[in-house]
Amino acid sequence: MAAPPGTGINFSASMSRSTSGIQVVAVLFPEFELLDLYGPLEMFGLLEKCGQSVKIVCAAAQAGRVVSGTAGVGGYADSTLARPIPCDIMMVPGGMGTRAAVNDDTLLAQIRAQAEHSRWITSVCTGSALLAKAGLLDGKKATSNKRAFDWVAAQGPAVDWVRQARWVEDGNVFTSSGISAGIDMSLGLIDRIFGQAMAQAIASRAEYTWHNDAESDPFAAR
Amino acid sequence: MAAPPGTGINFSASMSRSTSGIQVVAVLFPEFELLDLYGPLEMFGLLEKCGQSVKIVCAAAQAGRVVSGTAGVGGYADSTLARPIPCDIMMVPGGMGTRAAVNDDTLLAQIRAQAEHSRWITSVCTGSALLAKAGLLDGKKATSNKRAFDWVAAQGPAVDWVRQARWVEDGNVFTSSGISAGIDMSLGLIDRIFGQAMAQAIASRAEYTWHNDAESDPFAAR
Repeated sequence: MAAPPGTGINFSASMSRSTSGIQVVAVLFPEFELLDLYGPLEMFGLLEKCGQSVKIVCAAAQAGRVVSGTAGVGGYADSTLARPIPCDIMMVPGGMGTRAAVNDDTLLAQIRAQAEHSRWITSVCTGSALLAKAGLLDGKKATSNKRAFDWVAAQGPAVDWVRQARWVEDGNVFTSSGISAGIDMSLGLIDRIFGQAMAQAIASRAEYTWHNDAESDPFAAR
Repeated sequence: MAAPPGTGINFSASMSRSTSGIQVVAVLFPEFELLDLYGPLEMFGLLEKCGQSVKIVCAAAQAGRVVSGTAGVGGYADSTLARPIPCDIMMVPGGMGTRAAVNDDTLLAQIRAQAEHSRWITSVCTGSALLAKAGLLDGKKATSNKRAFDWVAAQGPAVDWVRQARWVEDGNVFTSSGISAGIDMSLGLIDRIFGQAMAQAIASRAEYTWHNDAESDPFAAR
């Protein structure tokens, strides 16, 4: 299990653990999928408008512009992954860039280290391939994008892959299906942390109809 | 009506009009809402995986990091708005930053100039306040976020505001309700440009259940 946040050796003063609210570290890498990342970050960010303190750090190999796999639109990393940042939620998006990233031993080691300083570990879409290759899903249930499922599953032979699920929760690990499913999964995690009323309040602020049944997956059959 | 793309005096060589596919210019400003911007850009970007050429330019007062209103997560602008960029779709997100931006005469003039070089003019959430204040919605039907509707409506007394709508199409202008509604609106625009089969294909790739009835708005009554 992950260490409780705020106990890491590399504890960052700028990231000190508050007594309420959440701290999120999102992992960016070249050719991540845009909505995989910013859908969940919107949901976590809206907690701020519901009375919670929220700190979100986007982190990558290097700080600065990170090219997405969505028509090359640029994301932005404020921090490097060189040192883990104690947080509540680590968020790993998917995207075409995962094909190269599963062979990036430095990134995988950084994700492993970051996971040790995160209370909750989450991924969207093919982001679960990175968690799997980093060994973080061994013996756990997990899911992924339906179009890339076989490739993702091959990254983690010891993972109990669930082919039909909007998202899968196993202990402190939440993995979701493709792209937009990350929004539903992050609301599911907000439900787990803050309760269903908060998750519904966030969905309402986003004018979003939350698909709150983790097992309902209309895209698995396609 | 907007001039056809590619005919502008300030035509940029790097943005030359292709014969197929689309070119999108997204307008960033401080404290834009994260999903307002990146939800639609994901849908437009996925056209690339469906055989279309796609070019997306994020533009702001200055190139570089642009702070969002979503827990301060950084977006990134690759271009300035100093010269309009001929394109198919101009996209203006909303967010808390619109409160200041409606008084930014430079930005409003840049949005007006950009609109003249855009075939389609779109906004998400309170982004319609910027279009309204720029005079681009006068005499047209438009909608906006339901929580900020009265404030938005006050920015455009000559606009025919529609209080209950997921999104509103009037000629070449598409405006949407709050935050996640931008995803449905952009699929509606893809439907208009490329046909419904393409819009459904994009939604399927995003594993997104498209709310494709523009008039169905479960959030208007809240």
